[in-house]
Amino acid sequence: MSTTTPVDFGADDLVLSTELANSLADRWRLDDDRLGEICRYALLPPGKLLRPMLLVESAVAVGGTRYGVLPAAVGAESGHTASLVHDDIIDQDELRRGRPAVHVRYGVDDAIVTGDALLFDLFAGLAGCRYRGVAEARIVDALAEVARCGVELCRGQMLEAELTRDRCFDAARYRRMVHLKTAALFRGACVSGALLAGGSAEEVAALRRYADELGIAYQIQDDLLGYLSVPAVTGKPQASDARNGRITMPLILAGQAGGPAARRAIERQLCGGGDAAARHARLRRIVAGSGALDEARDLVREAVGRAGSALAVLPPGASRTRLRRVAELLLDRDR
Amino acid sequence: MSTTTPVDFGADDLVLSTELANSLADRWRLDDDRLGEICRYALLPPGKLLRPMLLVESAVAVGGTRYGVLPAAVGAESGHTASLVHDDIIDQDELRRGRPAVHVRYGVDDAIVTGDALLFDLFAGLAGCRYRGVAEARIVDALAEVARCGVELCRGQMLEAELTRDRCFDAARYRRMVHLKTAALFRGACVSGALLAGGSAEEVAALRRYADELGIAYQIQDDLLGYLSVPAVTGKPQASDARNGRITMPLILAGQAGGPAARRAIERQLCGGGDAAARHARLRRIVAGSGALDEARDLVREAVGRAGSALAVLPPGASRTRLRRVAELLLDRDR
Repeated sequence: MSTTTPVDFGADDLVLSTELANSLADRWRLDDDRLGEICRYALLPPGKLLRPMLLVESAVAVGGTRYGVLPAAVGAESGHTASLVHDDIIDQDELRRGRPAVHVRYGVDDAIVTGDALLFDLFAGLAGCRYRGVAEARIVDALAEVARCGVELCRGQMLEAELTRDRCFDAARYRRMVHLKTAALFRGACVSGALLAGGSAEEVAALRRYADELGIAYQIQDDLLGYLSVPAVTGKPQASDARNGRITMPLILAGQAGGPAARRAIERQLCGGGDAAARHARLRRIVAGSGALDEARDLVREAVGRAGSALAVLPPGASRTRLRRVAELLLDRDR
Repeated sequence: MSTTTPVDFGADDLVLSTELANSLADRWRLDDDRLGEICRYALLPPGKLLRPMLLVESAVAVGGTRYGVLPAAVGAESGHTASLVHDDIIDQDELRRGRPAVHVRYGVDDAIVTGDALLFDLFAGLAGCRYRGVAEARIVDALAEVARCGVELCRGQMLEAELTRDRCFDAARYRRMVHLKTAALFRGACVSGALLAGGSAEEVAALRRYADELGIAYQIQDDLLGYLSVPAVTGKPQASDARNGRITMPLILAGQAGGPAARRAIERQLCGGGDAAARHARLRRIVAGSGALDEARDLVREAVGRAGSALAVLPPGASRTRLRRVAELLLDRDR
């Protein structure tokens, strides 16, 4: 499959996407105050709704109902959006989903507060499942998991900043960062979905492994996009890595392949001042000439394979199939 | 009672203060990573520990145990500290508890992430109560309350920014802002403590009223400090209102007393550029000459009285006495 538009992970299930979007719109009304207005702007129109979709499918895959966990799924999107709003401030990214980022549109101060509000709403979503028949013990299981994943997410964001400061070409530290940062919200979604639905310990562990591998695959694929596609595809500026001096997997692999000279060349582009787009273009040439793109694609393919294998212990069914498909769709995201 | 040092609200209970400080130190170890280091810096040495103290005393007042709710109390301090860390970025306050604010010491980016991590840890604390014998249904009750109060806090912060932009001398809007912003974390602490301890609906409602009145009293007293005391007392810079153009209760009252001319004079100092300390000194003179200080003190005294009355439905005992004393101590905070 070849495509020039972003893969719509939710396309398998338009009913769920619609239900989620409606719940988000209900949560923050047009006639709310300024906080409501900004939360709506951040959440709607919705993105891929990947994390709520993971939560729902994980729950249903282990015997739960979509109805029971929907508030938590809405919360998962709020939590994800909170991290985007704060990330965009930190990375000084000015575009998100093809529109001005929240801090560009409403200012940094209100963007900080909006992110905080969306984090609180993540937890309101968990509590809301009690009115849909989910036992309180399961909600507390999910609460503990989501809170832990949230702290891991923050740990990962800080580690990412450290790797950037250190100009670190260490693939192992990068993987640890991704495990903490990118995979955390996937874990939070999949594991809390399974816990809310009363999945067995084995099923919960399987979905945790799946989420970890999905996180690795997703992040490396995301790194790759900057070296392959045009901004129209991602809806965000492409030169972000060059501007932020961030060493991503394609650069690590290019640095490993080309030795000290290549690493120095990469560092020069990352550290240099001046036009970020021009520096990014030079980074693209270095990466393209190094074989790193194929290598990175292989890493994605392997992680997707492991993600699929992890699902084997779940009962067969439409949800398990969808979860596998979410991982496999990542492989088509770069063309 | 007259004092030149800040009132230590926790002094009634040194055992509890020590237990809380030890728990905070255990949570974030010295040999942790950078996130751990920054969280420790933000949390320790501890401040007044007012919110965890409120949570514990509220729980014990309605029949719970300190042991049962201690993790939630630790979480209450994390949540409060999170809001301080983000607030100091927004207000560009450079000092906190007499030391450089987190964003000054570690940079804005890491300060944003640290605040997020502390917010997640607030919720981890609620989940932790299950291992101390608190029933899961009560934890979910508290979860819903804390998440709601968190969103209200954010709503209040945004309303405060709006009032500042509008140069608003409206006491009713100011009270609504305080109800949302300052009282939210008091409500979160008192009400979640009572819920975790299985308090009756009447007891929970009483502690909610108490927290609301405590919030009003606390905020007006805090506003007053800027017009009375020296920075050594508060550990934060005094000219913050002048620098941020913020209209607080003493200014609203001075504006009401002095009519349009006084309001214009106040606005000139708030909007003007140049030395914030000099503008603050002029604001002090306007406030001092207007009778607003006495009027604001009366408002504090009235709110403290209502806070005490709200406690009447609770069973008598040491915790109820301490809660009343916390409110009354506010009256001594300005001399």
